[in-house]
Amino acid sequence: MVVAEAKTSSKPLIAAATGGTPSRRPVWFMRQAGRSLPEYRAIRADRGMLESCFDAALVCEITMQPVRRHDVDAAILFSDIVVPLKAAGVDLDIVAGTGPVVARPIRTADDVAALPRLDAAAVGSVSQAVGLILGELTDAQALIGFAGAPFTLASYLIEGGPSRTYENTKAMMYARPELWHQLMAQLADITVEFLRVQLDAGVHAVQLFDSWAGTLSVADYQTYVAPHSARVLAEIAEYKVPRIHFGVGTGELLAPMAHVGADVIGVDWRVPLDEAARRVGPGKAVQGNLDPTLLFAGPEVIESQVRRIVRDGEKAIDAGAVGHIFNLGHGVLPATDPDVLTRTVELVHRL
Amino acid sequence: MVVAEAKTSSKPLIAAATGGTPSRRPVWFMRQAGRSLPEYRAIRADRGMLESCFDAALVCEITMQPVRRHDVDAAILFSDIVVPLKAAGVDLDIVAGTGPVVARPIRTADDVAALPRLDAAAVGSVSQAVGLILGELTDAQALIGFAGAPFTLASYLIEGGPSRTYENTKAMMYARPELWHQLMAQLADITVEFLRVQLDAGVHAVQLFDSWAGTLSVADYQTYVAPHSARVLAEIAEYKVPRIHFGVGTGELLAPMAHVGADVIGVDWRVPLDEAARRVGPGKAVQGNLDPTLLFAGPEVIESQVRRIVRDGEKAIDAGAVGHIFNLGHGVLPATDPDVLTRTVELVHRL
Repeated sequence: MVVAEAKTSSKPLIAAATGGTPSRRPVWFMRQAGRSLPEYRAIRADRGMLESCFDAALVCEITMQPVRRHDVDAAILFSDIVVPLKAAGVDLDIVAGTGPVVARPIRTADDVAALPRLDAAAVGSVSQAVGLILGELTDAQALIGFAGAPFTLASYLIEGGPSRTYENTKAMMYARPELWHQLMAQLADITVEFLRVQLDAGVHAVQLFDSWAGTLSVADYQTYVAPHSARVLAEIAEYKVPRIHFGVGTGELLAPMAHVGADVIGVDWRVPLDEAARRVGPGKAVQGNLDPTLLFAGPEVIESQVRRIVRDGEKAIDAGAVGHIFNLGHGVLPATDPDVLTRTVELVHRL
Repeated sequence: MVVAEAKTSSKPLIAAATGGTPSRRPVWFMRQAGRSLPEYRAIRADRGMLESCFDAALVCEITMQPVRRHDVDAAILFSDIVVPLKAAGVDLDIVAGTGPVVARPIRTADDVAALPRLDAAAVGSVSQAVGLILGELTDAQALIGFAGAPFTLASYLIEGGPSRTYENTKAMMYARPELWHQLMAQLADITVEFLRVQLDAGVHAVQLFDSWAGTLSVADYQTYVAPHSARVLAEIAEYKVPRIHFGVGTGELLAPMAHVGADVIGVDWRVPLDEAARRVGPGKAVQGNLDPTLLFAGPEVIESQVRRIVRDGEKAIDAGAVGHIFNLGHGVLPATDPDVLTRTVELVHRL
């Protein structure tokens, strides 16, 4: 439960997330720090992704680039879903054009038993980065912590990399449910530890990404995933900061995902925000949901769609949501013109 | 509208699709002809995919392999979504491990204007294959014709191949709606011609695959896609055969997809069949929806899930569906054990 005084936060994102009255309509973009920005491409030109995620000064710089450029209302810690796994000692790399590649995918009970725990000291650079970022933000800007949820972490570890079918992941889930729950429990521990490091360092909110949960039916989500995501969110409740929860293609899962303990539910572009608010029920904020491909459609289409989403956000509030945080429905695509993002922020703030 | 006598068809699939009483519960599997079968891998070892799709004897053999092996209630014409585009003269290939690759992606008005029409003679081998297959089927077995819907065809042509984001496709859709509708109209013409060739040759049903429509919101589907899919299905209505319509991740789109003129709506595993029937409304059959990854979960889990889906199918009929055709929620995965498929068919028929 978020503290009452958060409602009157000077940070529009925190006010919107907690049922307060934000001083302006808060907006940020998933993957706002990244390849859409020339300054990001320049700074990453000779540095690997994982190396960058463990360099506090670099994490701070990359996190701040879009905040300086676009005047968004939140920074999100620059990281990757597999960072806590790497820090724990899992042999993996992030391969350009592919994504995470795990050297020895987890398939057996021995593999699960051998999964290391995360020691906070192994992500000391992340803690340090949070401190540096907080020193650069204004009082109106929020810093959002970042972590992957257990299911999405499990899918990378079991498949060995990105997947379209999640067949090995689901095979373990369906055929070996005890082993599955053991793995998910260990991953929940890692996620909790990774979020605590960020929360102890002072992040103002967290976003838990269950990016690939949308591959599951409601029944499977409830049986195999929800208990572990719920534990993650419960174990950080004591920090009393807004907990944002997001996945792609989760139209069927919006209510169960919100009910694992999220304060804000992220919505992709497939479900209008007001419909999302009805599915979730009252008392949560909604975040989203411009289709990132719309940013290629030219200023007139973008303006009309941004206006529609702002209206949908207001309808969501009428339907019981406590607030609306403007965002895309998924991450910024690398080919996006950064000036278009800047103008979109200006428009959201003007409306 | 399907003819009344179809209800009493000796083919269980046709009876289930048309509100009749099938002599047994019909079952087939999307991508039942394919890499899960050793006899398929053997016959394709030294032949390219596209080459195979234009060889009538080979199409017949590959189409019949799973029918002989599994005793499914339907054959589906072995083909690929891009076959009619290739036949029309589009320079493309199917690359193993990647999928369709289009030599010159369609991006401009000139590209759209240059898109060739499909001449029935260019798919004469497909017509011939249908005749050969019909000669091998029993009176109880149905042959389902195959085509991709305009949106999915457009996505391949515009992206140049498979995509996770469809950013170029949506950019044209949003930014150049007139050009988009012109392209979709031309693709609808190609799809209609390809289906007519199959229908003239005697297929008993057709399945229109809009595999990637699930990337769209309802509003965008209705504006940019539905009119063209509706025209395709309307233009083949005169054949009075069941028209099955399917896409992946289409929970939000089940009603609009059914209402473009489908007699049977294919459902993936994310939405239970009875819930799908409620979304669609009465008067259509439902097809689906075992998660294909469940086939890796061992006999006990498979049996319990097959039984659940049969129950969901019965509840769908209680909710207004005219019938249930058992299928997977997406295609058979290549690593699937074919014996598991055979036993699944036996179980469905026994229940």
